[in-house]
Amino acid sequence: MTEPLPGDLWPDIRPDAARRLMAAAVDAFAARGYHATTTRDIATAAGMSPAALYVHFPSKAAVLFAISRSGHERALAMVEAAFAGPGSPTERMGALVAEFVSWHATKHRIARIVQYELSALSAADYAVVASLRRKTEAVVRALIDEGVRAGVFRVADVRIAARAILSLAIDVARWYTPDFRPAPAELGKRYAELALTMLGAS
Amino acid sequence: MTEPLPGDLWPDIRPDAARRLMAAAVDAFAARGYHATTTRDIATAAGMSPAALYVHFPSKAAVLFAISRSGHERALAMVEAAFAGPGSPTERMGALVAEFVSWHATKHRIARIVQYELSALSAADYAVVASLRRKTEAVVRALIDEGVRAGVFRVADVRIAARAILSLAIDVARWYTPDFRPAPAELGKRYAELALTMLGAS
Repeated sequence: MTEPLPGDLWPDIRPDAARRLMAAAVDAFAARGYHATTTRDIATAAGMSPAALYVHFPSKAAVLFAISRSGHERALAMVEAAFAGPGSPTERMGALVAEFVSWHATKHRIARIVQYELSALSAADYAVVASLRRKTEAVVRALIDEGVRAGVFRVADVRIAARAILSLAIDVARWYTPDFRPAPAELGKRYAELALTMLGAS
Repeated sequence: MTEPLPGDLWPDIRPDAARRLMAAAVDAFAARGYHATTTRDIATAAGMSPAALYVHFPSKAAVLFAISRSGHERALAMVEAAFAGPGSPTERMGALVAEFVSWHATKHRIARIVQYELSALSAADYAVVASLRRKTEAVVRALIDEGVRAGVFRVADVRIAARAILSLAIDVARWYTPDFRPAPAELGKRYAELALTMLGAS
């Protein structure tokens, strides 16, 4: 692994060995792609034997699913927290975009797996992830709807606007590199301003 | 190949066998990822022998580079044409976003290779592509700058705004499916409106 494992990485996953395997898988998938990575590659990068990997994950697909599900759950939790937070629709949408962008910048290597490796998931695993994605998008739509009803957003097509808001944030994971300035938190604030302007926020 | 080869696909590439190999490679990379695809996979999918592939491309990496370079050249030509086109900065930016979005929707399978497989390029090939990307982004920045100077755009940070405009369009390739409505041309128009609002167009 190229980076120490941050404490906030997959805090929901136990034990620590499973988290280390997921981090090693992120590195391996990024370097070689999912299909060309073996369970041995992942185990070796995590300093374990292939047999030790199988204690935690029945397959390489299970490691991918754990990374993807955790990332999508985190995304849903983030937008739900912003939706339920204090303030006007404008303030809550600003907080939502700022945090979503900051996360996709800080965790860009994980986010690339989460966002770009959906086609490698099994049908059953994809159904779980697709449900989380629909819920996440529904929260963004609901917040835009609320702002439109309150007369603070002016949007021609709520569904397309919600897609565009999520696109702006998710695509940060594609191009972000650690040397980019401003740093993730400030980048999030600037994107929040752009997103609010896009929604016609008054 | 799952689709007939459209006439507008890589019109700059000759002969037709090379275009068929590139189309087969797009299918194979999408299905298995670049690293797990062999030159035999590509040749077979194009109805050729591996030896016939080497007549046109010295390696799998050369096929990837041809796809990536052609896509990036097309992107640059698109934004340069919009920049040089008739009309106000608002009209030209609207045309730029509409066409860029429509292309990323219509050609989403190719665009995913072009946008997400950069890390598989050799250093020399990446340098060519990176130069095309810098030029493309510079054109978008120049058009935003022109609009700001003309007093028709209001933008806090031109560099970040240009990145966001490109992000909006490029991310369409990630989520677009052929059953999505509205169809690419109309989607492009709606995104153009969102982008212009984001730029504070008056």
